[in-house]
Amino acid sequence: MTTTKGITLVAEPGKYDLTMIREFDAPRELVFKAHVDATWLARWLSPGDYDMRIDKFDARSGGAYRYIHIGPEGEEYAFHGTFHEVSDPVRIIQTFEFEGLPETGHVCLDSISFEILANNRTRVTTHSVFQSVDDRDGMIQSGMERGVNDGYEKLDELLERELAKSPV
Amino acid sequence: MTTTKGITLVAEPGKYDLTMIREFDAPRELVFKAHVDATWLARWLSPGDYDMRIDKFDARSGGAYRYIHIGPEGEEYAFHGTFHEVSDPVRIIQTFEFEGLPETGHVCLDSISFEILANNRTRVTTHSVFQSVDDRDGMIQSGMERGVNDGYEKLDELLERELAKSPV
Repeated sequence: MTTTKGITLVAEPGKYDLTMIREFDAPRELVFKAHVDATWLARWLSPGDYDMRIDKFDARSGGAYRYIHIGPEGEEYAFHGTFHEVSDPVRIIQTFEFEGLPETGHVCLDSISFEILANNRTRVTTHSVFQSVDDRDGMIQSGMERGVNDGYEKLDELLERELAKSPV
Repeated sequence: MTTTKGITLVAEPGKYDLTMIREFDAPRELVFKAHVDATWLARWLSPGDYDMRIDKFDARSGGAYRYIHIGPEGEEYAFHGTFHEVSDPVRIIQTFEFEGLPETGHVCLDSISFEILANNRTRVTTHSVFQSVDDRDGMIQSGMERGVNDGYEKLDELLERELAKSPV
């Protein structure tokens, strides 16, 4: 089956939020697991040739997380937040903050939904709301879409390998 | 000293956020403590003649909370969220969800700042960002401002009693 990969990004001018939609060739349980299992997450959630180190990852409602992307030259980019809701296998609501900004306290609220599609496929929709239009536009301009796309391509590979081990 | 009590509410039409500003006749450390000490919080954070029961309250960065307002007829209204950041005594960033809505997952992100004013007074600014304009407007129409104002009047009394015990 050939499917169109790539993120659909919706960000209307002047608004506080953005939406990213991406489909995966794997059943929802697997795609959800890849978001809440720290070992799996570390295998895909980083841009390009960046490594990922997980400092803390307590993926349950009321839990918290922190992880670091490590670039080829050893440069580190850390992120942290809390899990407001983890509803297996349909939704995650979390806060998210990049620690490398000039000042702390710029936080966004992500709601990630996992939807069953035909043929054992899954649609992941991430709705992010920021504290200002500037915060949102800054995130977009930082190269977010490319970084997320890189990660999702690794996730495609991870899912393919896991499906090969135990086909649906 | 006579000061103007009452909340300044800023909510521009069509936006995702709102800001509430309120000043208190007490030093910042006390006002902050009233927001992070569960025993103190239970004494003021409820509207009118509602009681408050705290189910969980772990006021540290990465912690979570849940509390219930209990009305005169025993009716219960529960709220929960996570503490993304607790920076004593300057800022709290938290998620917030009312459990009584027809569907779950309508969450807002609050950033509460505590600012020193002259004469041992404190300004509390709460910036809340919602997942949609409808969510924000629904919160405003629910009587939020009156409920918050009721709570703040109880907080005035609590601070006055505490200051009488150990004056600045």
